[in-house]
Order: sequence, then C-alpha cells, then structure tokens
Amino acid sequence: MTRHAVGTDARTEFLDITPLVKAAITASDVTEGTCVVYCPHTTAAVTIQENADPDVPRDLLMWLNRLVPKDVPGFKHAEGNSDAHLKASLIGSSVTVLVEKGAPVLGTWQGVFFCEFDGPRDREVWVTVRG
Amino acid sequence: MTRHAVGTDARTEFLDITPLVKAAITASDVTEGTCVVYCPHTTAAVTIQENADPDVPRDLLMWLNRLVPKDVPGFKHAEGNSDAHLKASLIGSSVTVLVEKGAPVLGTWQGVFFCEFDGPRDREVWVTVRG
Amino acid sequence: MTRHAVGTDARTEFLDITPLVKAAITASDVTEGTCVVYCPHTTAAVTIQENADPDVPRDLLMWLNRLVPKDVPGFKHAEGNSDAHLKASLIGSSVTVLVEKGAPVLGTWQGVFFCEFDGPRDREVWVTVRG
Repeated sequence: MTRHAVGTDARTEFLDITPLVKAAITASDVTEGTCVVYCPHTTAAVTIQENADPDVPRDLLMWLNRLVPKDVPGFKHAEGNSDAHLKASLIGSSVTVLVEKGAPVLGTWQGVFFCEFDGPRDREVWVTVRG
Repeated sequence: MTRHAVGTDARTEFLDITPLVKAAITASDVTEGTCVVYCPHTTAAVTIQENADPDVPRDLLMWLNRLVPKDVPGFKHAEGNSDAHLKASLIGSSVTVLVEKGAPVLGTWQGVFFCEFDGPRDREVWVTVRG
Repeated sequence: MTRHAVGTDARTEFLDITPLVKAAITASDVTEGTCVVYCPHTTAAVTIQENADPDVPRDLLMWLNRLVPKDVPGFKHAEGNSDAHLKASLIGSSVTVLVEKGAPVLGTWQGVFFCEFDGPRDREVWVTVRG
C-alpha cells in the first residue's frame, strides 16, 4: 500500500488523480489484477467519472451541493460540515480499478477523481495493487 | 478480465445481469474469492438490489430521476446528460461479489444490476474474478 | 468468508461495526491485503464514516431521510420500503478496507458502519480477507 499527498483548493472540488493511480500501478510491478484507490477521510471521497469536459465535474458538484446544502437547519455536528460527511458516504470511500499489462484499464472517458467536500485541505489517497 | 456486451432499451433502466456474472465466475474456474463487476461508462453504473419485484427498480429510478432531473437550469455540459453522470457517481462504477464453491454468494433477494442512465445504448460490463 | 449477526434497533440506524471487522481480520491470519465488508440485504448498506461524534450519523440519517422519504406518492412496491432500497443503492453494498500488520488501516476518524434503512431487524454482515 502506498500513500500519496493530495492538495485541494476549494471547499468542493473534483481532482483528477488518474496520473497518480497509473504511477502507483507501475511502481507496484503488478501486471494483472485489481487496484483499490482509497480515501482515508470522512469528508472526501473517490469516484470514477469523465475527465474530458471540465463542465462534467462542475455540474456534478453544482447539483450535489443543491441536494445536500452546507447549512441545513437541524444539523447538530459542531464542525458544521455534516453535508460533507453525507456527500462522502453517497460517493464512497474507494473505487476499484482493473489492471492489465501493468496499467489501469479504464473506459474511454473515465478518469479517477478525488472528491473534496470540505476543503481546501491537505489530503491523502492510499493505493493498493494486487496481482 | 472478461468483457460482456449489454444492450439497454430506455434512457434509464435497471438490467438484471446476475446470469452474466454467474457465467463469468464459472468460466474463471475460481472456486473461492471475490468478483468485481465493473462499468466502463461514465453515464451508467452497477448496483446490487432486489431482483424479485420489478416495482423495486421502477420505484428507485422514479425517485432517482426526481432527485437528479435531466433538465436542470445551470448545467453547462454540452451533451445535456449531466444528470446521468451524477447518477453514475452516486450509484458507483463497480460492485464486489463474494465467491464460494465457484458461484456468487448473494443475499436471498440480491441480484446484480447494470444501471443505464443515458440510454438506450450498446454498453459493456467487465468482470474479473480472483481466488 | 465469515458471517456475522448484526441486530438493529430502529428503522434507520448507523451501527459501528469496526470491532467486528477488526476481529474478522485478526481471525483470518492475513497480515497484508484487503478486506471486503459485504451487506447481503437490499434495504441496508455499509459505509465508512466518522465514528467520533454521534451527531455525524444522526445528521446523515436526518438528511438522507429528507432526500428519500419513506412515503412517496407513486411508489408501487407493495412492501412500502422502496425508500430503503434506494438508500441502500446510494450508499452501497460493500466497502473495501486495507489491511496491514494484521489490522485494518483506517483514517484517523474512520469507522465501518452497518446502515439500516428498514429496521429494526436481525441482519448479517459478511467479511472476506485476502492476502
């Protein structure tokens, strides 16, 4: 398992970490298997999404922030980031990527994204590759 | 890893692919381990849900389409399917199924579904089984 | 793969099952690898969330119940629990936990939760650990 530093610049942000995942798979020397990309935070997540048009993550965040607004009357968690916790559980703490010939096998439009929901912060992504 | 063609017939649809998953596990000769069912598209997903009453996927899609409507003022992605991208990230790009005695071990009411959010289309599902 | 009984006390509830996961990893004798925590039910799920402040799961359930209410006009599924099925697919049927030195490697604030959406019920969690 390897740990990778990730820095985010906004409260909510989708950060393309596909290069990081590719590098971790190359470094692992595994040629065929599966790779787990894991987010060790409870107000952030990881997802696989289109990395061609930046309007896609923009639209996703716009509507996700509408569905789960930051300031909801009735939230009791003192840190004031309960929305970020819910977004994290809706999107999920990890994704699995298939590995062939020492590289991730993604669909044509797919990239791996770190999803920040309570930034900006210094974050980590953990990656494990198994043959 | 094996690739399987899947065809969908509506814009949003839950397609029961449990037979496909069972066949892929049988063909793999793995008797005990885990199986990853992966969706290589960014406007579709996979989930594990009840496959007994067709009203369950019907109700799920009805409410999911209400939560994330197709035409939202403010969506900028030119293809007009940002809702499908968000639904895909909410449901998830893969599921893990446990394998015992060369077969998937699912709960009593569980089946594996391909979730189409921007069909009808010709799609693929990728399956990998590891012992 | 090991099966573990879990009992829930309310219709919707987040139950911290981190101790159960730790014990299953210890019992597996696997020192380095991955652990899949699987929910074999279609109206329950598993997630990784903060297990420090009980207000976090409370706030999550409050808003999740607002997003997907129990009684929606138009739901046809006769059991009246379509909301629970949708919540289960949104949160997900399994989580993957990384394993090092025979123990789960979680982020500082992370715990593994069983998410009940149609309780109270006698439930199961299945755990598999692979080295």
